Amino acid sequence: MKQISLLGSTGSIGTQTLDVIRSNPDHFKLVALSAGSNIELVASQIREFHPLLVSVKGEEEARKLKLEVGDSTIILSGEDGLMEVACHQDANVLVNAVIGSVGLKPTLAAIRAGRDIAIANKETLVTAGHIVTTEANRHGVALIPVDSEHSAIFQALNGEDPKSIDRLIVTASGGSFRDRSRDELQNVTVKEALAHPNWSMGAKITIDSASMMNKGLEVIEAHWLFQIPYDQIEVLMHKESIIHSMIEFRDRSVMAQLGTADMRLPIQYALTYPQRLARETAERLNLWELGKLHFGKLDMERYRCMKFAYDAGRAAGSVPTVLNAANEVAVAAFLNNQISFLQIEDLIEASLNQHVRISEPGLDEILEADAKTRQFVQSKL
Amino acid sequence: MKQISLLGSTGSIGTQTLDVIRSNPDHFKLVALSAGSNIELVASQIREFHPLLVSVKGEEEARKLKLEVGDSTIILSGEDGLMEVACHQDANVLVNAVIGSVGLKPTLAAIRAGRDIAIANKETLVTAGHIVTTEANRHGVALIPVDSEHSAIFQALNGEDPKSIDRLIVTASGGSFRDRSRDELQNVTVKEALAHPNWSMGAKITIDSASMMNKGLEVIEAHWLFQIPYDQIEVLMHKESIIHSMIEFRDRSVMAQLGTADMRLPIQYALTYPQRLARETAERLNLWELGKLHFGKLDMERYRCMKFAYDAGRAAGSVPTVLNAANEVAVAAFLNNQISFLQIEDLIEASLNQHVRISEPGLDEILEADAKTRQFVQSKL
Repeated sequence: MKQISLLGSTGSIGTQTLDVIRSNPDHFKLVALSAGSNIELVASQIREFHPLLVSVKGEEEARKLKLEVGDSTIILSGEDGLMEVACHQDANVLVNAVIGSVGLKPTLAAIRAGRDIAIANKETLVTAGHIVTTEANRHGVALIPVDSEHSAIFQALNGEDPKSIDRLIVTASGGSFRDRSRDELQNVTVKEALAHPNWSMGAKITIDSASMMNKGLEVIEAHWLFQIPYDQIEVLMHKESIIHSMIEFRDRSVMAQLGTADMRLPIQYALTYPQRLARETAERLNLWELGKLHFGKLDMERYRCMKFAYDAGRAAGSVPTVLNAANEVAVAAFLNNQISFLQIEDLIEASLNQHVRISEPGLDEILEADAKTRQFVQSKL
Repeated sequence: MKQISLLGSTGSIGTQTLDVIRSNPDHFKLVALSAGSNIELVASQIREFHPLLVSVKGEEEARKLKLEVGDSTIILSGEDGLMEVACHQDANVLVNAVIGSVGLKPTLAAIRAGRDIAIANKETLVTAGHIVTTEANRHGVALIPVDSEHSAIFQALNGEDPKSIDRLIVTASGGSFRDRSRDELQNVTVKEALAHPNWSMGAKITIDSASMMNKGLEVIEAHWLFQIPYDQIEVLMHKESIIHSMIEFRDRSVMAQLGTADMRLPIQYALTYPQRLARETAERLNLWELGKLHFGKLDMERYRCMKFAYDAGRAAGSVPTVLNAANEVAVAAFLNNQISFLQIEDLIEASLNQHVRISEPGLDEILEADAKTRQFVQSKL
């Protein structure tokens, strides 16, 4: 029985994690969860899953939630509450499904408490990959990817010697605007950006997919999860998102994981690895019905965020922190109709240009670089 | 250091096995080989690889070979010689690259002598899969596939629990005549049949690919190698032969192995498993240059041999033996211009119809069914 703490229970990955738990009551038990301010949904989750501990955004939300569910569950709030959920003593795995670098501190706390981490929160690895992976190694804790691309690579690596990896091939659908030129991106709307062709996901990651920053963050995430140099991580355009990613091994054999666009598969795999549990009601992949899979070369001129991400990853130190923080604030501003789509790129570029790189930043320096970058981008809005 | 006995050194798989050995002199040593009557090639192989023991087709070939290479190597001939090569005491693995059910007896002898088997000789598993796999289990011997499809499945199974397999998905290029209707097959020539679109292989397997009997034999081979019921083995048309085959696991995750059309990869993997050795000069798979992969549904009406094979596999007992023996003689007759392409199917069907099934045949009954079927087909030529 896996005892699970879940950070971010009301988001896309959070609710699908609960789907997985609901489908396998003999294998999984939810012991704690955190959420933001969707009190109605949290209340129904509490009634269904009976976690021992819940944390919400602030005291106001905690008060409202108590009115809904009474005293059956301990209800906390804020950063302290998040840390309590992340480190709950009855959990043996933390599913980190929050969005943004807010996931960093609870992840580190859970690692230090010896919890395995199923990580859907890529920003944590982008902003402080060197600290998170070093701590995970030190505490003998597994970092198991939930992102479909990284889960694919993780599955392809099963039974293999990591030293045999020649290249990681991360596939990219191209997002909502893959069929538009840069000129055609001038006046795109939030609604258009949110219409991803293959995946139904949260707003932030869908915008990141449209700008390809999502793929850039994934390249950095892959670098840290699999300890592979950036020169050996390639992005391949693949508009159907059927091949979720691949490994080319040194004997030129390529192992790939394929599937439908259903995040419950990688979520479940992260919780059952190295075993697999039946998902009998899930749709099968049917390649002959699809007929064709398409592949194309990544154009770094078209997708400037890819270039920012590779450059930031290679620069390392505090630079990926700045990349991520600038992107988070810029995407929020775009979603809030404060800036145009292409201004996301401009704000990231300006942030990177004004930053003075720190080569081996500690956690405090990471948090400071993150905060300063957010202030910088805010000041430009 | 793997010490290798090689059956069938002058054929397509045999010469490519020697390429692999040549490229990795620190990892592989050839200790014994067998061949047929291509004495010039065997002589040059002896000069290069210095095996301790060689066997050729008959006494006449052995005499000619001794004239070429002198007394440096022990030279035998016939079935006894084949058995000596298969069981050579210095070998720890036998690469069985002969064509046809002639590979059966030396394979069984090598298994009983405790040698692991890298098996490219699918007819052995088709004709007596129940005996070969039972003996391999009993002697704790590994049967490692060399066929690209089975190697793909074997690689995809690495690190997984075989009980998690839901389906094997064996890909099929469709062979030389994939773009022709049955009507257009009436007058095809041997030369046309030998022009495989993707793979450069021996004559027998290339004709089997054109008739799809090759895929049928592979389905039966997969059944035995992976112990999977026929209802869980699916054939998927995939004309580029880039995805070499796949496993769908019970969580609906599909693991696939991809690569260029280079048999040296699965040959080498069979010899290095579970490790992988670098193949630095080998071509990389480049999906964006390819642009597209195509998939289609198998049409059992179009490819009658597929139906014969599934039916024979399900019937089991002595029926697959008859399927294979009839096919071997019919293909040889087609290559010899004695019959037309579509008569291959007719002769196989007639053989299956006249056979009285034996439910659990021993080796003698297998050999008798094989011989009788050959006589039957010969009598119809």
